[in-house]
Amino acid sequence: MAYEQYMHWAIELARRGFGSVEPNPMVGCVIVSPSGEVIGEGWHKQFGKEHAEINALKDCRLKGLSPAGSTVYVTLEPCSHYGKTPPCAAALIEAEVSEVTAAMEDPSEKVAGRGFDMLRKAGIKVQVGMCREQAELLNPAFIKQSRRSRPWVILKWAQSLDGYMSETDAGGNTVWLTSEASRQDVHRLRRSCDYILAGIGTVLADDPMLTARPSCGRSPHRIILDSKLRIRLDMKLFQSIDAAPLTIFTLSNDEEKIQEIKDCGVDVERAQKDENGRCSIRGVLDKLSALKAQRVMVEAGPELLSEFIRCGLADEFWVYTAPKLLCSAGKDSLPEAMAGLPRSRLCHTEFTPFDKDIRFTALARDISEI
Amino acid sequence: MAYEQYMHWAIELARRGFGSVEPNPMVGCVIVSPSGEVIGEGWHKQFGKEHAEINALKDCRLKGLSPAGSTVYVTLEPCSHYGKTPPCAAALIEAEVSEVTAAMEDPSEKVAGRGFDMLRKAGIKVQVGMCREQAELLNPAFIKQSRRSRPWVILKWAQSLDGYMSETDAGGNTVWLTSEASRQDVHRLRRSCDYILAGIGTVLADDPMLTARPSCGRSPHRIILDSKLRIRLDMKLFQSIDAAPLTIFTLSNDEEKIQEIKDCGVDVERAQKDENGRCSIRGVLDKLSALKAQRVMVEAGPELLSEFIRCGLADEFWVYTAPKLLCSAGKDSLPEAMAGLPRSRLCHTEFTPFDKDIRFTALARDISEI
Repeated sequence: MAYEQYMHWAIELARRGFGSVEPNPMVGCVIVSPSGEVIGEGWHKQFGKEHAEINALKDCRLKGLSPAGSTVYVTLEPCSHYGKTPPCAAALIEAEVSEVTAAMEDPSEKVAGRGFDMLRKAGIKVQVGMCREQAELLNPAFIKQSRRSRPWVILKWAQSLDGYMSETDAGGNTVWLTSEASRQDVHRLRRSCDYILAGIGTVLADDPMLTARPSCGRSPHRIILDSKLRIRLDMKLFQSIDAAPLTIFTLSNDEEKIQEIKDCGVDVERAQKDENGRCSIRGVLDKLSALKAQRVMVEAGPELLSEFIRCGLADEFWVYTAPKLLCSAGKDSLPEAMAGLPRSRLCHTEFTPFDKDIRFTALARDISEI
Repeated sequence: MAYEQYMHWAIELARRGFGSVEPNPMVGCVIVSPSGEVIGEGWHKQFGKEHAEINALKDCRLKGLSPAGSTVYVTLEPCSHYGKTPPCAAALIEAEVSEVTAAMEDPSEKVAGRGFDMLRKAGIKVQVGMCREQAELLNPAFIKQSRRSRPWVILKWAQSLDGYMSETDAGGNTVWLTSEASRQDVHRLRRSCDYILAGIGTVLADDPMLTARPSCGRSPHRIILDSKLRIRLDMKLFQSIDAAPLTIFTLSNDEEKIQEIKDCGVDVERAQKDENGRCSIRGVLDKLSALKAQRVMVEAGPELLSEFIRCGLADEFWVYTAPKLLCSAGKDSLPEAMAGLPRSRLCHTEFTPFDKDIRFTALARDISEI
């Protein structure tokens, strides 16, 4: 097994934390004996719980094996600080491992090389950079937050093969465009995000809850952009207020309705007006940024989609394509929404099947430029 | 190994003939000893050459093994007639196999059960129908031709993720939308077809050759619909006349230009006029039908695409999606082409990756309804 294979496996292990560890990064760790045997595996499983290295050391000891003298492959620099758990660097030193190979530095202010320093001072050989790109791709939002203190914006939408964003039945009612498997994946994505943002158009058309189901205890804070405060209090967003917080950004001065909404336990915030007289998405993102939002998911209808692309504010795309040629059963033409917008750059593109649908994911820039 | 696994393998073998055997069907054959060992494999490799059963028997004997007493798994009923090769049923009888399991009957007039009759009369046990659907999906055009004497029409196009059928660079010139791998696959598809049809719009925009490259000795007959005879004699279609025949359907009476074109070795046919004053695609398909065309591929631009869908004349779809959000760099919006058309039914949908692109294939009806 080439050394990179150990790191590939650590990256695979890391992925298992998706939707459970955020806003922490996903991290995986593999401990390898001098003879090349994998003697311990671990990953960060849940926010606030043990880090990957600690779980890998535990796994090793549970097998009755000693990590002393081993090489540790880890997807991120071991931490050096006492947070919710003691520092992993200290645990690795105590375990007398002889080498740590990390895919990348921890860019967060709290670590930023100090984990490597601790290890080196203890005489442990440190190597950095193996499979760096794949490791960085695990946690782009974490990296952006660390480097630029700005939230990572994920545009998600569904479409038919022929470029429509919604499907209507014979009676003109909106129906599910994508398969059950795709929709389950969307709920997984929701669990990985701290905020979910939708426009009032989508809300009025679909009356969605915008919660993660099942939530597994994690459902994003819901943000609705509703410049004219057209939302109705009998909508599912209000009925599901116990499942996840709800904030409505508006330009409206209808103080009576605002009070009614607030009485339901829903936050109402004054938005800034953009040049088209709508809620400014830049302004909303500034507010979320101040709240240290890390992953903001946009359930994009045609309006929000074009607005985010126009402003260059999308970091990542998740697009589900259903194998359908809707023709006249289609609504919300994608090219119509995109007309006149600057072309979007897409990097790290990937297709993944979900039942009969296909999911497309991409970043708006190279991972090295985040 | 469950018995179906032998048939699955025969189906996989059959696929290797794609682009070489047409207008013959793709057929695969696996010979299994009484102890369950695969002792012979074969497939129909090239039009006019040995059938799958003959190749499997050969393979068996080359290994020094006897097919006597074996069970033969074959994706199509063994033939009963002397064509370009002697009948396979006779060869199987001579080889003293004890059982033949076929996925489907041969629907062509020349066989239609007579292969099974020959085998049964010789005391060979015959079973029919294992993995029928997958076997039928190998050869829908062959089935349609056998049952209805009509050509099978494949609509092929490329699109961006956001529903544009072509891409322009900064200077407004059309550029390749899809990857090299996708384009190679299109050439494979071309090799499997006897006719390729394009509209004059595509020809004027892209100046294509519409040949299979490499041809491997097989390039489809090219058909251009050019109602006003706008084609130019300096186009690549004319330069590549030695690579594949070229026929232009027109409504024009410009006898001088028609003569000029004919002098280049190009056929010019009078088309029927449809209700929009263009060449009638129904009329063209009637003519191709009379020529016993089996697989007609349409390199669809927006006009031909909508026309075929409007008329319900598409049998199969091959759509390549490039991972691009073109926005203003996009041309030929798919939803615009589809506007007002009846929704297309899609069956047997499948996604297949080609480098960074994804290919989507589907049939317009269930395979059982062909």
